[in-house]
Amino acid sequence: MATDTFQYFSAAALRDFIENTFRAFDVPEADAAQAADILISSDLRGIDSHGVARLRKYVEMLEDGNINPRPHVRIVRERMSTATVDGDNGLGLVVGPKANQIAIEKAKKTGSGWVSVCNTNHFGIAGYYPLQALQHDIIGWAMTNTGKWMAPIFGVERMLGTNPIAIAFPGLEEPPVVIDFATSAVSFGKVQIKQREGKDLPDGWVLDDKGNPSNKAEDLISGGSLLPLGSSAESGGHKGYCMAAMVDILTAVLSGANWGPFAPPFASRVFIPEESVGKGIGHFFGAMAIDGFMDVDVFKTRIDEWVRRFRATKPAPGTQGVLIPGDPERIAEAERRESGIPIIAPVVDDLRWVAGKAGLNWIA
Amino acid sequence: MATDTFQYFSAAALRDFIENTFRAFDVPEADAAQAADILISSDLRGIDSHGVARLRKYVEMLEDGNINPRPHVRIVRERMSTATVDGDNGLGLVVGPKANQIAIEKAKKTGSGWVSVCNTNHFGIAGYYPLQALQHDIIGWAMTNTGKWMAPIFGVERMLGTNPIAIAFPGLEEPPVVIDFATSAVSFGKVQIKQREGKDLPDGWVLDDKGNPSNKAEDLISGGSLLPLGSSAESGGHKGYCMAAMVDILTAVLSGANWGPFAPPFASRVFIPEESVGKGIGHFFGAMAIDGFMDVDVFKTRIDEWVRRFRATKPAPGTQGVLIPGDPERIAEAERRESGIPIIAPVVDDLRWVAGKAGLNWIA
Repeated sequence: MATDTFQYFSAAALRDFIENTFRAFDVPEADAAQAADILISSDLRGIDSHGVARLRKYVEMLEDGNINPRPHVRIVRERMSTATVDGDNGLGLVVGPKANQIAIEKAKKTGSGWVSVCNTNHFGIAGYYPLQALQHDIIGWAMTNTGKWMAPIFGVERMLGTNPIAIAFPGLEEPPVVIDFATSAVSFGKVQIKQREGKDLPDGWVLDDKGNPSNKAEDLISGGSLLPLGSSAESGGHKGYCMAAMVDILTAVLSGANWGPFAPPFASRVFIPEESVGKGIGHFFGAMAIDGFMDVDVFKTRIDEWVRRFRATKPAPGTQGVLIPGDPERIAEAERRESGIPIIAPVVDDLRWVAGKAGLNWIA
Repeated sequence: MATDTFQYFSAAALRDFIENTFRAFDVPEADAAQAADILISSDLRGIDSHGVARLRKYVEMLEDGNINPRPHVRIVRERMSTATVDGDNGLGLVVGPKANQIAIEKAKKTGSGWVSVCNTNHFGIAGYYPLQALQHDIIGWAMTNTGKWMAPIFGVERMLGTNPIAIAFPGLEEPPVVIDFATSAVSFGKVQIKQREGKDLPDGWVLDDKGNPSNKAEDLISGGSLLPLGSSAESGGHKGYCMAAMVDILTAVLSGANWGPFAPPFASRVFIPEESVGKGIGHFFGAMAIDGFMDVDVFKTRIDEWVRRFRATKPAPGTQGVLIPGDPERIAEAERRESGIPIIAPVVDDLRWVAGKAGLNWIA
């Protein structure tokens, strides 16, 4: 992002701005605070694509009446360790935490809890949810489907979202292992960064609209598709397709949401699928109480040992060595709590626009 | 495998041979039948690397006293929807089904069941277990860790196994969606096939013992490592590493088994890790009753719709179009039930050796 200019903002100031923005669009106080917590967590953890940079899109969807600011989130079916939740077309940033909490409560009672969610919208970074579960000594899982970008192996058509998976495990003295990744080879955000830098894309990221491999971001945008993790059939792309399919089925087929190519996009003013096969998009949350398997401190000590042994892996030439899942985000958070959150100029412009819509003063 | 010669055997004859072999090594009758069922299922489904081709290794481990033929498989800790199981160093082919059954029973009672297993051994194809769960209208998951082959991204050392993940979803009129894949870019078996064919390996499969990308199977065998799914850091290799790590933690850290580089290899007569951090290798089974989320027939109908829409994806040039996860194995099974199971000459030799050890007549 060498060509971009940044401004730095404190997390606290941005968080207040986000919260006040949601309140201005009729989101209740507690829900607005929750939603702001997720977006700012993304910015703090260095996942710039999923934080305040998305506030304008949330606002547009609220303004257009495409998202319900005051949803009645309810369980529509349940057993002792499972539930299906209807998010009443609320913000995913509000529905997600409530559904995750239901999974956590079930795990406290029975050892585990599994919640599939329909009629919801984008829920921010998947990694936020297992971090909430960790506070209860629970291993948390989160998945969501998203609007279509990815072609299955041997297909040309966009059929699946980037469908992320997250899970986290707590250490005792070491920081937690936090896994959070999209099941496409790369996220759309990484393609955008290359485009802004004026660079070609590496092999294995995208196809053009004819299904040919391409190194041009423009080919993705003009009807092409993201490749699944593994990229080609020869190097395991069918596995990324399988994972994205698994997420699509657990989040959307199982909950009654729109699956695959029918998942509505995260935007008010682009292509909307011609047909609906359910309600909204879908999430899936899991919660497993560690004490359902092992003494909590024994498990955490074993995670510490795992982390230390993996950190000590013989490093590859020309690298800093092996990272533990969650390291990059933790390092980013330490830096950004100290130095503030860098926001690129186009996002600052969006936030000024948001301030105008919400009747707020922009921070700067 | 163009250079290999095959002999064809009926599944029934091979199955009997496997069962009688296990019985000859003091495995109780029901357990021997169960173990044979898993191995033959692998051969029928076209996964030649995990079926009867492995019988010699199982026999060697039984003969050397490295596997307990009569394990007392027991729950060492549980809550209503969770358990940890100690496999008493039994065959994974015996321990796995018992632990999977515990998960299924818990799902019947509470909606879901989650079982982490220590003190076990190789359990065959991961996909076998969710197919058992489907018979009860349950979505089943299976994972296992395995002996080390994979280097984490930015590492040179073998630290993780090929750690597979499987999950399956039933259709009503359509066949089930069956997902089963190793979290490495490719399995060791695919490297062996290229080696037998005298071909170079594609990019993105392996590193040599210095951590440099290699196209030689020999470089893998002489101290190199398999790359995780996604291959390089640029194309998402950290995601494959994350998935393999997730499997390692759920199967082995959480159960009390040996994790990461300490997982014992599937062989009696090769390198054994110098240190132990638990008991045996680990498995992890999940079971989710569909009726804990949605009416079973509604879900199955939605899966049918999903399958049909994905099959109708616009095909990529030069391909037969998009497959549904599980298609290749289902097609192989139909063919092999008709024409028999092809066994390559070196495996036939191994089976003759096994027959001698077990005091049995070989089929041919």
